[in-house]
Amino acid sequence: MNKTGSHRGRRPGNPDTRAAILDVARRRFLEDGYHAVTLRSVAAGAGVDLALVSYYFGSKKGLFGAALALGANPAELLARVVAEGDLATLPERVVRQVLAVWDDPVTGPPLIAMLRTAIDDDSVGALVKEAVEREIVDRIAGLVPGRDAGRRAAAFTTVVAGLITTRYLLRLEPVASMTADDVVRSVSPQLRQALRGPGRAARDARPAQRS
Amino acid sequence: MNKTGSHRGRRPGNPDTRAAILDVARRRFLEDGYHAVTLRSVAAGAGVDLALVSYYFGSKKGLFGAALALGANPAELLARVVAEGDLATLPERVVRQVLAVWDDPVTGPPLIAMLRTAIDDDSVGALVKEAVEREIVDRIAGLVPGRDAGRRAAAFTTVVAGLITTRYLLRLEPVASMTADDVVRSVSPQLRQALRGPGRAARDARPAQRS
Repeated sequence: MNKTGSHRGRRPGNPDTRAAILDVARRRFLEDGYHAVTLRSVAAGAGVDLALVSYYFGSKKGLFGAALALGANPAELLARVVAEGDLATLPERVVRQVLAVWDDPVTGPPLIAMLRTAIDDDSVGALVKEAVEREIVDRIAGLVPGRDAGRRAAAFTTVVAGLITTRYLLRLEPVASMTADDVVRSVSPQLRQALRGPGRAARDARPAQRS
Repeated sequence: MNKTGSHRGRRPGNPDTRAAILDVARRRFLEDGYHAVTLRSVAAGAGVDLALVSYYFGSKKGLFGAALALGANPAELLARVVAEGDLATLPERVVRQVLAVWDDPVTGPPLIAMLRTAIDDDSVGALVKEAVEREIVDRIAGLVPGRDAGRRAAAFTTVVAGLITTRYLLRLEPVASMTADDVVRSVSPQLRQALRGPGRAARDARPAQRS
């Protein structure tokens, strides 16, 4: 390592330095859990000054979010899914995207670890709750026409949360070992019903029509 | 049953006897899994008559709930809800029962603690997963006519899991602070859709009919 500059040679402004910190942090969070990790221990592991970790990430929560966003950031992925089509096919597209990142052996485990931590630790839980409300519920609500958009978006999010909890946290059968196609087929109708709201039954993808 | 009075001297009515049974049951459930445990093996482990275990806990479900220190046993409550009406009103009745016990300041916290532990600890997680599959998914499947009953029951359970995760674990708004009536109204249509299965949209509470 370069030993000519600051402490143990890593310097601010070098993208490799930021990446090295994130790499260490990600491994520490996953192996040791949220509580056991300190900015100091991550700095030491990455061979940088503590001040540099604070400079890049501000706090442990900031470092946690950045470290786990490395693989897949649910809020950004939802934004992409929303942009790719209309409301009629949103349920299928959302389920496919959820499965793509949570089933993936690289992006899945950090997400599962993050959710476990959110459920176990109140401060991380508050962080995740706030991010989900702002980045996911509110975004879905913005797509839904009519009254009670916020409640329909919340009902939609609740079904997605149920899929994630049963398939990835409890590994409940048959949900845990169904193929992606079968999960899409099984779960999407409930998402479509959630978007419709309680006043209408989900006949199909189009708005309900009187015959 | 009772052979020579009380086996190894433990007697009904002694609080230590009940505690001893629970202690053995908790260890057996965690070490051997839900399926492998029998009332008989717990009785033998605790040095009491089988009849005494039945007397205190009624069934394996009851023993399991008591061993996990649950004031309310989801499997027994579901059995009661199922017995109280038909499939058409099952969604509303299940949501109301879930809210009644999870919102309750006495019965709720131990259930939340149990679920957190199940998510955090693999051995407890495996136990809860197995109990939910056997006592909840299979029971719902037994009520659903037609093909894919198991998958529809799993889809139903997934929606309930999503309600519990968002309202009680993540405390996601607006789900966390909605009134019971509003939750019933918001979530039941997705449960009804889950019972129908993906081939049919939930027009109403009655079975779909060909016209």
